[in-house]
Amino acid sequence: MEQTVRVCLVGAGRVAKVHANSLVNYIPCARLAALVEVVPQVRSETGEAFGIAEDARFDSLETALDRAQFEAVVITTPTFTHKELAVRAAEAGKHIFLEKPMALNLQECDQIIAATHDANVLLQLGFMRRFDPEFTVAASRIAAGEIGRPMMVKSLTHGPGLPPPWARALETSNGMLAEVNSHDWDCVRWLMGSDYQRVYTEVANFKGPANQVDTPNFYDNVLVDIRFENGGLGSISGICPCGYGYDARVEIVGELGIMQIGEMQGQAVVVCTNREQGLVTPIYRTWPERFAWGYIQEMQHFVECVRLGKRPKVGGEEGRWAVAGVLAATRSFLESRPVYLHEVLSLK
Amino acid sequence: MEQTVRVCLVGAGRVAKVHANSLVNYIPCARLAALVEVVPQVRSETGEAFGIAEDARFDSLETALDRAQFEAVVITTPTFTHKELAVRAAEAGKHIFLEKPMALNLQECDQIIAATHDANVLLQLGFMRRFDPEFTVAASRIAAGEIGRPMMVKSLTHGPGLPPPWARALETSNGMLAEVNSHDWDCVRWLMGSDYQRVYTEVANFKGPANQVDTPNFYDNVLVDIRFENGGLGSISGICPCGYGYDARVEIVGELGIMQIGEMQGQAVVVCTNREQGLVTPIYRTWPERFAWGYIQEMQHFVECVRLGKRPKVGGEEGRWAVAGVLAATRSFLESRPVYLHEVLSLK
Amino acid sequence: MEQTVRVCLVGAGRVAKVHANSLVNYIPCARLAALVEVVPQVRSETGEAFGIAEDARFDSLETALDRAQFEAVVITTPTFTHKELAVRAAEAGKHIFLEKPMALNLQECDQIIAATHDANVLLQLGFMRRFDPEFTVAASRIAAGEIGRPMMVKSLTHGPGLPPPWARALETSNGMLAEVNSHDWDCVRWLMGSDYQRVYTEVANFKGPANQVDTPNFYDNVLVDIRFENGGLGSISGICPCGYGYDARVEIVGELGIMQIGEMQGQAVVVCTNREQGLVTPIYRTWPERFAWGYIQEMQHFVECVRLGKRPKVGGEEGRWAVAGVLAATRSFLESRPVYLHEVLSLK
Amino acid sequence: MEQTVRVCLVGAGRVAKVHANSLVNYIPCARLAALVEVVPQVRSETGEAFGIAEDARFDSLETALDRAQFEAVVITTPTFTHKELAVRAAEAGKHIFLEKPMALNLQECDQIIAATHDANVLLQLGFMRRFDPEFTVAASRIAAGEIGRPMMVKSLTHGPGLPPPWARALETSNGMLAEVNSHDWDCVRWLMGSDYQRVYTEVANFKGPANQVDTPNFYDNVLVDIRFENGGLGSISGICPCGYGYDARVEIVGELGIMQIGEMQGQAVVVCTNREQGLVTPIYRTWPERFAWGYIQEMQHFVECVRLGKRPKVGGEEGRWAVAGVLAATRSFLESRPVYLHEVLSLK
Repeated sequence: MEQTVRVCLVGAGRVAKVHANSLVNYIPCARLAALVEVVPQVRSETGEAFGIAEDARFDSLETALDRAQFEAVVITTPTFTHKELAVRAAEAGKHIFLEKPMALNLQECDQIIAATHDANVLLQLGFMRRFDPEFTVAASRIAAGEIGRPMMVKSLTHGPGLPPPWARALETSNGMLAEVNSHDWDCVRWLMGSDYQRVYTEVANFKGPANQVDTPNFYDNVLVDIRFENGGLGSISGICPCGYGYDARVEIVGELGIMQIGEMQGQAVVVCTNREQGLVTPIYRTWPERFAWGYIQEMQHFVECVRLGKRPKVGGEEGRWAVAGVLAATRSFLESRPVYLHEVLSLK
Repeated sequence: MEQTVRVCLVGAGRVAKVHANSLVNYIPCARLAALVEVVPQVRSETGEAFGIAEDARFDSLETALDRAQFEAVVITTPTFTHKELAVRAAEAGKHIFLEKPMALNLQECDQIIAATHDANVLLQLGFMRRFDPEFTVAASRIAAGEIGRPMMVKSLTHGPGLPPPWARALETSNGMLAEVNSHDWDCVRWLMGSDYQRVYTEVANFKGPANQVDTPNFYDNVLVDIRFENGGLGSISGICPCGYGYDARVEIVGELGIMQIGEMQGQAVVVCTNREQGLVTPIYRTWPERFAWGYIQEMQHFVECVRLGKRPKVGGEEGRWAVAGVLAATRSFLESRPVYLHEVLSLK
Repeated sequence: MEQTVRVCLVGAGRVAKVHANSLVNYIPCARLAALVEVVPQVRSETGEAFGIAEDARFDSLETALDRAQFEAVVITTPTFTHKELAVRAAEAGKHIFLEKPMALNLQECDQIIAATHDANVLLQLGFMRRFDPEFTVAASRIAAGEIGRPMMVKSLTHGPGLPPPWARALETSNGMLAEVNSHDWDCVRWLMGSDYQRVYTEVANFKGPANQVDTPNFYDNVLVDIRFENGGLGSISGICPCGYGYDARVEIVGELGIMQIGEMQGQAVVVCTNREQGLVTPIYRTWPERFAWGYIQEMQHFVECVRLGKRPKVGGEEGRWAVAGVLAATRSFLESRPVYLHEVLSLK
Repeated sequence: MEQTVRVCLVGAGRVAKVHANSLVNYIPCARLAALVEVVPQVRSETGEAFGIAEDARFDSLETALDRAQFEAVVITTPTFTHKELAVRAAEAGKHIFLEKPMALNLQECDQIIAATHDANVLLQLGFMRRFDPEFTVAASRIAAGEIGRPMMVKSLTHGPGLPPPWARALETSNGMLAEVNSHDWDCVRWLMGSDYQRVYTEVANFKGPANQVDTPNFYDNVLVDIRFENGGLGSISGICPCGYGYDARVEIVGELGIMQIGEMQGQAVVVCTNREQGLVTPIYRTWPERFAWGYIQEMQHFVECVRLGKRPKVGGEEGRWAVAGVLAATRSFLESRPVYLHEVLSLK
């Protein structure tokens, strides 16, 4: 139980830095042992920032597996690379922390699940809301029956900035429903305690033209209506770029009452210096800020699972369901009709 | 400009009492001159409560028109009676305040509009949110461009108690989408500044069985996805009975930012006497409580319009659009498909 | 019970207009019958604004008593005139609504109380917080024991603008402790359920110099420590001009818990259009805005008391105690020591 | 820069466990190397909880200095032991993290400061609010002039439970003003940017009798009025036991506006399941919960200062001023008069 877990970061972008920060500054029993990144500048930048020796920085997972010693990987590369990297890491016997969305389609999800199963390695999905103190407490209270049988759940994620090109094209990422709303897909299923049965989606493209976005089927606003297997209703909304901050909230109504999870206020500092304007209070500006604590906790959980051989609280099954929701909802807006999950699930 | 407006209440139920209270206790230049109600007990109860003389209480509008002097009627009877009463009042030259929903269908709406037009009398719809200080200020700020071009609007109304039988049957009322959510239909269109183009609806029935409700097609939860003519998206949610209070809130995101209108907190009195339970603050329990000020203001507006011959801020056109939304959304859940407004509008 | 109460406004300034608005626009059974104001321009302005006929506008209470018919007066003139006007009105048999502070000293308070007693007329003090829904509910809940025996109460009033010269000089008004904080003096005693035993005061003058205020002993910040007869503690804070809005809040801790009454947020409309700035929500800008409902309710109560011959909920005794607190607290800062109430009470 | 800082905990009570948790679970470059505690059961309990080997647990600092290797001590023992332990640790060349209050009187403070100076070791005081994100940001914004020159600051700390006997006796701890309100003393001075000039204190004892507390001069409620050297005013309130939670908030008004720091709400999870009761949201129950992040950050700062030889952000000077405030305020209530700081400062 005293051993240190050595971790290789695969991908060195924004969320990789968040995980590196957790590993280096907040988790005594982990060590950042290696870094894989194809873009040289990003590689050296992140390497420097977190004190990773130059000879522990690699341009491919293959080389890292060859030359470095580690027990686990944290994969944060673009979605379309997840399957190949995760399967390779599993085959090499590495435990896997995999960022959302899990993969591009259900076949890929199944391949990842099978590979980790065959290699007997752990797989944790990057659903940090499962480790946020508010979401965690809320889920327990709902499960304990405090608001009764859930009837309707609404989850929103609005993000400030325009995603990179690969993250808005359906082919490479499944677009915003996957890149931004994966967390909502996971949360509504988790909190409702039921699988999606059918979904209907409306999308809009407001800011694309001004941002010179010519990606086919691009949308920056989405509203999904969900019917769950248990008869409950759900709604997911996504807006990106929304500009005004990072906004992630859930509202759920059960037979006995309502629960709101999360808020926009980013800090309990309220100021008024102009009575015509009114009170001003910080908003969460970014996702690392909103889920600062959750990001540390999810990585601590992963490291602890690796050390103790425990199964992570959130894994391949949850990742796969989120992908299934995204696929059904995407087909819905492409075909202007409600789509049943079984249409997507039977396809794989 | 000094004359007093004499009003005849047609209907003496819950919302009638709210209006009677405004007229009797808060509007110096109005006088409650007559009361029409078919149920004797309700008639005498409301009559006594507001000091209406016995010889000014009637069992039909016809009798009241015959025997009493008044310039205006406030119609609060069940939806299926609106058309006949409103048309009759118009023919008799009375100005009309008509509760929502305006009528059962668009033909009835058109008949009411035509009758008031022909008789040159005023028609105000009971959309009190248009007179609530928060909704009013919010609408002005949106119209002034503060949050930019609206992209997505969400409006919810959750009410505490089970509606009476006529108010949950599609035949007599169009159900909850009309009885509870009429205000949302009006608000999303008002705040978005655009008409609905198509709608998709999911419904659920959670509490019906326990409440011995056997109304066909009964639902107590509803979620509507809306696409507006201007490309914007919208959502309306309704839950009734929700039990936990009266909840009416709007959230709207524009190209420049977000605006939230309304809150659940009913009073700025916060108490904690148990640290395991936490802070406790009142919730709005009922709609008369939530919109106490709006109810007074809408009636003051009506009386002022009658005195000055001004056109009310909200009238037949707004009432008719809300009915159109209800009809399209109802067809949507009956047929499990998105329904275009033109399907409903071309039917009339 | 049907008769209309005719009211003569004595004083036509800011708070007079608030009361005139209540009487004219919200209280059917009252009539604004006369107006007394010494400054011709203010007299005609307020007269026009509320439709008071020219021959019902007077330059002295004496003339009004001679020429107009009314049952009640609403006195809103500067503090140093209260005693003379109230005593005269009482002698003429008029019921009296008297703005706070009641008078300059306890002798004057006693003369007013005696005069109303001798003439058998009603006396209501302008403590509108006693009619604010939040303060009213809070007081009931405290009295019912919800937070246990009160141990500590804090009340603050911060007002936006610089008071007129007479309202900052100790000689003509007793300064800010009286003009701004009279409500706090009344509230802490009301909510604590005990009389003040001794007080200690610190004052500061921050903005006087920049505002060319050369009033002797002028202060614009004040903090009072109070010990109550029941052993409880209290604090009153005043800041005027504070610039940022009108701020009136109370926090009270009892043996079983805490209660907060009031908040700064003036409207439940929250906006964010700039993530670096954060969420923006209106603050109460002025006292008529914060206590809009309380001002209407207190005047309705007065009119109802006159009509029914009921004793007002808040009268001379409450006004006198607030004056006593002001006098003790003023002496405290002048003499830099705690002052017992009995020092002031025995002086009269 | 890579070296690990070995820490010896001196004292193993509640706050010691909070620091141990930071050191063991959140600070990779620190190591919990030794534990000193006189009470055997507490020693073994805390030792077990944080994996401190039995041979690294000691019953005196002297023994620990003899037998264990470490660079720093974290002193959390009762106040009356601080001077002796801190001076001894300094003499042994150990860097010192010292819990508040710094010491019993100014002479002791001076001896600690001199010892750390002579030994050239670092001294950090346990004022974790200086590391709380909200207090830190607020202080920067005030210093940057956002609310203008501060005029009035109010700080409160209300704690849930009855302190142990030594922490309520003036002789061993200076009572609640020191044990509970030390943070307030530090914060008001920090945020106001000025030293206290004179103070006036009222105390009350509400719950002592029911709790069989017969400590002389015991109080469980305290309100201090402060005048600062810069002319500003301040207020500190303390209640312990308050029962309802852990409450630590500051409100500060400057010439340009108001700022509120902190809130009672402990988590953004709002629930309503009973409309008569209303909305319920968690309150902070304990100080480790309220300042969870601040406790980690202050210890990270200390460890970093030791590693880099930097001077801590908060040290002996700040600790000494807080003690001075406590002494003056205590004399004030004992003598029922305002007390100038120079009376206390000249005494030492």
